[in-house]
Amino acid sequence: MSKQITRRSLLVGAGVAGAGAALAGGGYMLKTTQDATAAPDPAAKNSNPVIPFYGVHQPGIVTPAQEHLHFAAFDLLTNDRMQVRGLLQIWSNAAATMMAGQALGAGDTPPHAPPADTGEALGHTAERLTVTIGFGPTLFTLNGKDRYGLADRRPEALIDIPPMAGDALQPERSGGDLCVQACSDNPQVAFHAVRNLTRLARGLAVMRWSQLGFNRTASTSKGQATPRNLMGFKDGTNNLKAEDTDLMDKHVWVGSNSQPDWMRGGSYLVARRIRMHLESWDRDYLADQERVIGRHKISGAPLGSKNEFDPVNLNAKDKDGAPLIDQNAHIGLAIGDGSIKILRRGYSFTDGTNSQTGELEAGLFFIAFQRDPRAQFVPLQTRLAQNDLLNEYITHTGSAIFACPPGASQGGFVGETLFTR
Amino acid sequence: MSKQITRRSLLVGAGVAGAGAALAGGGYMLKTTQDATAAPDPAAKNSNPVIPFYGVHQPGIVTPAQEHLHFAAFDLLTNDRMQVRGLLQIWSNAAATMMAGQALGAGDTPPHAPPADTGEALGHTAERLTVTIGFGPTLFTLNGKDRYGLADRRPEALIDIPPMAGDALQPERSGGDLCVQACSDNPQVAFHAVRNLTRLARGLAVMRWSQLGFNRTASTSKGQATPRNLMGFKDGTNNLKAEDTDLMDKHVWVGSNSQPDWMRGGSYLVARRIRMHLESWDRDYLADQERVIGRHKISGAPLGSKNEFDPVNLNAKDKDGAPLIDQNAHIGLAIGDGSIKILRRGYSFTDGTNSQTGELEAGLFFIAFQRDPRAQFVPLQTRLAQNDLLNEYITHTGSAIFACPPGASQGGFVGETLFTR
Repeated sequence: MSKQITRRSLLVGAGVAGAGAALAGGGYMLKTTQDATAAPDPAAKNSNPVIPFYGVHQPGIVTPAQEHLHFAAFDLLTNDRMQVRGLLQIWSNAAATMMAGQALGAGDTPPHAPPADTGEALGHTAERLTVTIGFGPTLFTLNGKDRYGLADRRPEALIDIPPMAGDALQPERSGGDLCVQACSDNPQVAFHAVRNLTRLARGLAVMRWSQLGFNRTASTSKGQATPRNLMGFKDGTNNLKAEDTDLMDKHVWVGSNSQPDWMRGGSYLVARRIRMHLESWDRDYLADQERVIGRHKISGAPLGSKNEFDPVNLNAKDKDGAPLIDQNAHIGLAIGDGSIKILRRGYSFTDGTNSQTGELEAGLFFIAFQRDPRAQFVPLQTRLAQNDLLNEYITHTGSAIFACPPGASQGGFVGETLFTR
Repeated sequence: MSKQITRRSLLVGAGVAGAGAALAGGGYMLKTTQDATAAPDPAAKNSNPVIPFYGVHQPGIVTPAQEHLHFAAFDLLTNDRMQVRGLLQIWSNAAATMMAGQALGAGDTPPHAPPADTGEALGHTAERLTVTIGFGPTLFTLNGKDRYGLADRRPEALIDIPPMAGDALQPERSGGDLCVQACSDNPQVAFHAVRNLTRLARGLAVMRWSQLGFNRTASTSKGQATPRNLMGFKDGTNNLKAEDTDLMDKHVWVGSNSQPDWMRGGSYLVARRIRMHLESWDRDYLADQERVIGRHKISGAPLGSKNEFDPVNLNAKDKDGAPLIDQNAHIGLAIGDGSIKILRRGYSFTDGTNSQTGELEAGLFFIAFQRDPRAQFVPLQTRLAQNDLLNEYITHTGSAIFACPPGASQGGFVGETLFTR
C-alpha cells in the first residue's frame, strides 16, 4: 500500500507544481501536442467560471449556489494520522487545480503510466467548480477509539445528530469520516472532481456513499431567483444571502472567539437525504398543499399575501378570524421565532425507480451550513420532525454532519489548522 | 380504477384545450393572478427553446442532442386496448403542452383538486424539451399472450434482443411495455416531463425503471462538438448527423416501403445501461487505454493520426510494420466494414455508490436509433460483446428495445397509426 501511496503522491505533487505556473489558462488542458485540437466547451455558461480555492473561508459555502452537485462521503482506511494529513494536502492541491479549470498532472502523461487526470472534463471550463472538504465525527472518535490522536480536538459542535421523529436513516447513505462537496454549473465537472479525489485517495479512503444533485433548491445570493423543489414550490425564499456578511458572521461562520480555534472561519455542514413521496403529494389538493407549506404554490407568497417576499405574519387571520397559516405549516415551524437561521444549499435528486413500488426515488438532498448545529439544525429539525405537516410527504433516509474547517492559505491545505500543532 | 381514470382524463382534456390557445407564451405558466410574480428562468440558455411536438417524425431523435436525459420504462396495468390508446392520447397532448413550455392544465386550479401540473418546471422555459414515446415487445405479446389484439402488428424488427456475451442484465433495469425518453438542456424540465406523464398514467401503467442522464455522450448535429464520456475519451466522433438526411433515411427512419406500415417514419430505440468499471479503468496505462479505444485520449484522433476527424484506417501500420490500431480495439469493431451505422444519443449517468465495494455506480446510458435492430444493433453489439477490448472495463446491466412510431399529426397522437385501423 505504501508503494502505491508514494506513486500517487508523486503524481499529484507534479500536478500541483505545474498548476501554479499555468493558472491563466481557461479550460481543462493537458500539455500535449494534441491539446490544440481540444473541442470548445459546449456547455460553457459563465464568463468568469473560476472560483478561488485559497482564502479565509472554503469555497462552496457562500459561493452563489451552482446548478449541480456531486457529494461524497468517505471512510478512512489508514490508521496513520500523517497519511490522513497527506491525503488532505493531496486533495487540496488537486481541488485548487481543478477549480482553476485545469487537468491534474503536468506535462505529457508517460504512455506507460495511468493518466494523472481521468479526462472527462477536458474541453470544459471549471464552470464555477467549488470543492468543499469536511470532517465527520468519526474522524475524531470511532467506536470510542481515538483513531488519530485527534479526539481532544473534536469540536463540541460536531455532535452526533440525535435521532429525530420519523427518521428512516439508511447507514449506507449516512455518516462518513470525510466529505467532499463538489458544485459546478456543469454536472460532469462536478462528477470529475469527486471521481478524481476518490482516485487520489485510493488505499487511504474509500467512498462510503455519494449523491448526484441537479437544479439547486436554494438561492444563496441576492442575484439569484428562488428555485422550485420537486414539490413544485419555491424553496428557500427566506434563505440567508451571502451579501449579508453580518448575518453570515452571526449564523454561518465559526467566530474568532469560538472553540476549537482550528475551526475559526469554518462552518458546520449538515446533509439530509429527504425522500419526497411525490405520488402522494401529487394526489393532494392544491389548497392542502398550500396549507402544508404555508405559501401559495405559484407565487411563493405567504398564504394571504400577494408576493413571494412579503413578510411572513404567522398570526394573520382571515376575515372570519381563522389563522391564514396553519400553526404546523412548514413555513411557520421553519421560521419559528426567527432566531434560528441556516444557510441552505441543497439540490434536487432522483436515483431512479423503486422496483417494488414503481415510485420515483427522488427528493431533496438538503445541505445547510451553520455556526453551531446544536443551536441551529438540531432545534430546527426537532420541531419540524415533530409537527411539520410536510412530514406526511417526506422521509429522511440519510444524514451526516461534517466540520468544514477554514479555507486553505496559499500553499497550505484544508485541515492544516487541525493537523498542524 | 375507472373513476380515477375519468378524472385524470378530464383534467388533461382541459389542459390540452387550453394549450392550443396560448402557445405563444414562453415559459411554464399557470393562468393565475399570482402569475406575474413568477421568477425569471435562472437556467435559460437557449434563445429558441421550443421544439415542435407534431410532425412527420417524433422529436428527440434527430433533434440536436440536449444536455440532459430522464428516461422511463412503464408496465401497463390495464387489459383494455382502448385504455392504452387513451393513455397515448393523454401522453401526446401533455407532451405537446410541456414541449411548448407550458404547464399542464388550463385556468386556475380549483383549490379542492390536485394541481394539474406538479409545478417544478414553473419559471423555466422548455429548454428544448423533447418527449419520445416507444412500444416494447411486451405491448404486443406478453408470455405468449396477445394482450391487446396487437400481436399480428408487432414489427419483425421489434425483436427480443438476444443474449450477448458478458451480459449481466438486471430485470429491474430492463424491458418495459412503453418508454418515454425526455431530453432537455435543463434536468428539472426533463424530470418534470417524465414525472407528469407517470402521474397521468396512474391506474393504467406503472414505472418499471427510470434513468437520469447528464451530459450527452454523442453529437447528433454538425453544430455540436464531440463530448467526452466518463472514460475521458471523445465519444461518437463518427456518429450519424441529422443534417445528412440521406443517411438518416438509410439508417434511422423506417422507410415508406417497409413493414409494418404503421412504423413508417418511425425508428427503433435500443437502450443499454453500460456500467463502467472506472476504478479499474483509472488504473490502466494511458497507452493501454488508447489501445483499447483505438484513439488518442486527448485529441480523439485515430491512433497514429493527428486530428479527431481524420479518416480511420484500420490497416495502418507503424514504421515497423505493426498495426497502429489493434484488431480488437473498440473503434475498429464499432466501425467494422462501415456498412452498419446507428444514431447514438446516449448520456453519462451515476446512481451513487455501490455500498459493498465503494465503487461509483456510473457509466454510459447508451441509446441508439436505427431502422432495423436485426441488421444494426444486434450484429454490431454481437461483435463488440465477443471481442471488444473495452469489455474488460464495462458491463451491460440493463437492456430494452422500443418501436418509436412516426410523429403525431396536429391533433393526433403518437401511436395513432398502430391503434387506428
